[in-house]
Amino acid sequence: MYYVGIDIGGTNLKAGLVDEHYQLVATKKMPLQFTSMEQMGETLTDMALALLEENHIARDQVASIGMGFPGSVDNRRGVVIKTVNIPIRFMPVAEMVHRRWDVPVYLGNDADCAALGEYYHYGDEKLESLILVTLGTGIGTGIILDGKIQAGFNGFGGEGGHIVIVHGGEPCTCGRKGCWERYASASALVRQTKAAMEANPGSAMWQMTGGLEQVDGRTAFAAMRAGDAAAKAVVKQYLDYLAEGLANFINIFQPEVIALGGGVSHERDEDLLVPLQSMVLDMCFGREAERHTKLVKAKLGNDAGIIGAALLGVSG
Amino acid sequence: MYYVGIDIGGTNLKAGLVDEHYQLVATKKMPLQFTSMEQMGETLTDMALALLEENHIARDQVASIGMGFPGSVDNRRGVVIKTVNIPIRFMPVAEMVHRRWDVPVYLGNDADCAALGEYYHYGDEKLESLILVTLGTGIGTGIILDGKIQAGFNGFGGEGGHIVIVHGGEPCTCGRKGCWERYASASALVRQTKAAMEANPGSAMWQMTGGLEQVDGRTAFAAMRAGDAAAKAVVKQYLDYLAEGLANFINIFQPEVIALGGGVSHERDEDLLVPLQSMVLDMCFGREAERHTKLVKAKLGNDAGIIGAALLGVSG
Repeated sequence: MYYVGIDIGGTNLKAGLVDEHYQLVATKKMPLQFTSMEQMGETLTDMALALLEENHIARDQVASIGMGFPGSVDNRRGVVIKTVNIPIRFMPVAEMVHRRWDVPVYLGNDADCAALGEYYHYGDEKLESLILVTLGTGIGTGIILDGKIQAGFNGFGGEGGHIVIVHGGEPCTCGRKGCWERYASASALVRQTKAAMEANPGSAMWQMTGGLEQVDGRTAFAAMRAGDAAAKAVVKQYLDYLAEGLANFINIFQPEVIALGGGVSHERDEDLLVPLQSMVLDMCFGREAERHTKLVKAKLGNDAGIIGAALLGVSG
Repeated sequence: MYYVGIDIGGTNLKAGLVDEHYQLVATKKMPLQFTSMEQMGETLTDMALALLEENHIARDQVASIGMGFPGSVDNRRGVVIKTVNIPIRFMPVAEMVHRRWDVPVYLGNDADCAALGEYYHYGDEKLESLILVTLGTGIGTGIILDGKIQAGFNGFGGEGGHIVIVHGGEPCTCGRKGCWERYASASALVRQTKAAMEANPGSAMWQMTGGLEQVDGRTAFAAMRAGDAAAKAVVKQYLDYLAEGLANFINIFQPEVIALGGGVSHERDEDLLVPLQSMVLDMCFGREAERHTKLVKAKLGNDAGIIGAALLGVSG
């Protein structure tokens, strides 16, 4: 038996076949060309069927199709409510697929699907809970409790990047001020790095990058390792903001695992996970508990979305 | 069939019988006199059995006993891990009860039990989720998703009052700075009211109270209704802090209902719930959703703890 997963991004569609051991055994990728919701429904069905054909899989060997959308979904009704960057509003995806193929269709938010993928791939033992925190342009969070995505009663939950941690702080795209992602996303780290360079004309970061345009999320970490004091201060401050939000999540959920994803998560453990783990343990309730939330690096990388979408059929 | 619930407080033990319709039909109260965990186990068993006897209920008419403790519990193993204000550490409550009565024993945190009580008493239709936010000395939160208490994998979760909303803000008893409860608990409101009075010698709050010692959580609301400008500013600022934390919770959970408990929740709807509902809707994701989190007043008052402890047996 196989599970089909489709990860719908702003520019590409990625489909994959996942086997009973939750492993990705085949993929298919194509650019997204959105003209209408009707056409999009056809394209998604075509893509899933083509994936089967290319891999000589019969329809009845497929347990379900899962799709991860960049937005909010109503999985029970099989409807995508709204997406970011693609003009989808109340698209009846399950019904569209069912016109041509009577297979169970599951829908999820893309960040939630990625978290589900990490949850099922964590290890041999069943996890109680996992939260995936992806540090990118913003901060995406996917919350999995007891194998189930927690997206709220209306599908709009799990927006953990939009937790205000600095009351009255920096304006956020969401309309509030001081959201966590304004301080602890990869983009925030880039802004903080640039500001530190401007304030420190003697910082080694200038030579290392060649200028502000070349700054990325690795700049401050690399310069810190080279002994630059300004870079060290940037990383310290950044970790402090990151830990603040992680500690908030732990005080609420005490999840078994928090997995960090996104480019920043690839920094060396001794520069990122090790200091963070000790910082959050000091900040959180449950210091005296027998077990503490484990901070780990996300495992699945770019495939998390496809695998997680496919595993919507396992999670139910 | 009946469910026995015992609410263990720092000064009193309150036990109750809850019937199949989740109604409290009998109660029993006694002062807490803690000498040892051994004696406490005996007392709790005695109390439950005495409650049955007084109400002519046979042991086999009782489906379960549930107990709510002011601390962390390991419900699966039937052990209270740690309590606040009572020196309990790793108390095997279920085993203690089972020496004399072979009945299912469920354990919960008291704030979680109260939330469970509110969840099952909300209305006729089954709720998807409810979060109880109790505004008292601190802020207690109990999170119920799909009828189950969410206390994390180690029993220390649900500490929603200890979400930092003001990075680097007022020191909290938990060791962090800027926790929500430092700004939006009933005690915080009292502090904010006193500070406003000291800054405004002409405020009507002086006449209304007779002095700082008489200030309580109602002072600013009452003076605002009497037209006092300083009081109005206090309430506005307080609601702003309260809304900030509520919006954080909604962005994470999008729960079907948030119930407010504690003395402050008894303020008139037009002064509290109505402005809060509109403030949080403006702040949260899901503005375009068909359904929004409902803010309501908690219903059960002081009995929430007993009823919720008893209903641990329904929740499982």
